[in-house]
Amino acid sequence: MSIENRLKELGIELPASAPAGAAYTPVVIHELVAYVSGQLPRDGDRVHVVGQVGRDVSLEEGKRGARIAFIRALAALRGALGTLDGIDRMLKLTVFVHSATDFNQQSAVADGASELIFELFGKDRGAHARTSVGVAQLPRSAAVEVEVIVALK
Amino acid sequence: MSIENRLKELGIELPASAPAGAAYTPVVIHELVAYVSGQLPRDGDRVHVVGQVGRDVSLEEGKRGARIAFIRALAALRGALGTLDGIDRMLKLTVFVHSATDFNQQSAVADGASELIFELFGKDRGAHARTSVGVAQLPRSAAVEVEVIVALK
Amino acid sequence: MSIENRLKELGIELPASAPAGAAYTPVVIHELVAYVSGQLPRDGDRVHVVGQVGRDVSLEEGKRGARIAFIRALAALRGALGTLDGIDRMLKLTVFVHSATDFNQQSAVADGASELIFELFGKDRGAHARTSVGVAQLPRSAAVEVEVIVALK
Repeated sequence: MSIENRLKELGIELPASAPAGAAYTPVVIHELVAYVSGQLPRDGDRVHVVGQVGRDVSLEEGKRGARIAFIRALAALRGALGTLDGIDRMLKLTVFVHSATDFNQQSAVADGASELIFELFGKDRGAHARTSVGVAQLPRSAAVEVEVIVALK
Repeated sequence: MSIENRLKELGIELPASAPAGAAYTPVVIHELVAYVSGQLPRDGDRVHVVGQVGRDVSLEEGKRGARIAFIRALAALRGALGTLDGIDRMLKLTVFVHSATDFNQQSAVADGASELIFELFGKDRGAHARTSVGVAQLPRSAAVEVEVIVALK
Repeated sequence: MSIENRLKELGIELPASAPAGAAYTPVVIHELVAYVSGQLPRDGDRVHVVGQVGRDVSLEEGKRGARIAFIRALAALRGALGTLDGIDRMLKLTVFVHSATDFNQQSAVADGASELIFELFGKDRGAHARTSVGVAQLPRSAAVEVEVIVALK
């Protein structure tokens, strides 16, 4: 199954490939493993979901933020590989959730990315190890930041 | 030295292998490296050590939480490999400590996992890189979350 | 270009190689990838930059902390490899910033490490994936903690 085709079927358009900050790069590839820089739920210069989940931002919005941030990771991967079909499988997802002190549903927020991974990559290629934690702040006050490691073909 | 035998000698029983949430998987193996999903100090549905270390939870309890979470990572590895004797060596341990704002002994909490690693794997195979940080919250308000990367035989 | 020579040109002296805590090790090498333990901006027993960035510590000081912590990671790598010229390229940098609740420039703090990486390794070998997050606390109340993964020759 082509991931690019599946993306079209799901009606998802990737934003323009994220330009890196001056000092780092969106994707590093080594021995057929791609390390993707932490991604915010942004599109161009705009961050979509901002603030503490559980206070400024609902669980549902936080989940949407994780999904958007993962889509941005896909855009970075397409920028580096030319096509998402160069991806063999997902390996690891880390989800940092900008959390109110009493918000403890970081796993449910992370599901916003994990569910999209399964829709796109399926049960086998999409199976991924995951860590989700609640952090005090994130760059640009984003509600969520997503880091991805994938294996390449 | 068999890790399974050493576990028995230490009198440690692993909990039932952790079922993953719907959306991710406890262990992903790629090129003889196993990435284990972040583990809480839970057993079945119960989280053992809950709250902020340095406020609700003592340093000693936090350390115990790190140890229990690491035991859960072992259970996940046994579930994926069939036996812990498929492990070649520890590579990396990351310990997220749910911390009171003035609690700065995250390294001492992480020792709860590191010390068990040395007891089980010995000085050479157990040597691991480690990062410990203090986070604002964790899933289910757990006091600690542990992430492990190991090399396989 | 020799990294050791470049270090000299930049006038940077590495501190004595960091001794590990009893329970873990500064660098683990597996299949020509080196995982470096999380490093604080310390020199011997002294932590240089302490407190919350955005409250106790300025952005500039935080940046300096990230730079010092990265230098400590280099010291750990030299300790493990004998020479920094055993490094092929940077892969991944993770920067945990001990952040005031309203401080959201973690990326700018992380630039303190990233800019030094580019000065030392150049644009190609220095290109690295990066994640920066704001955490509630760090060991010894350090302002920043830096984790590095590098590929070896």
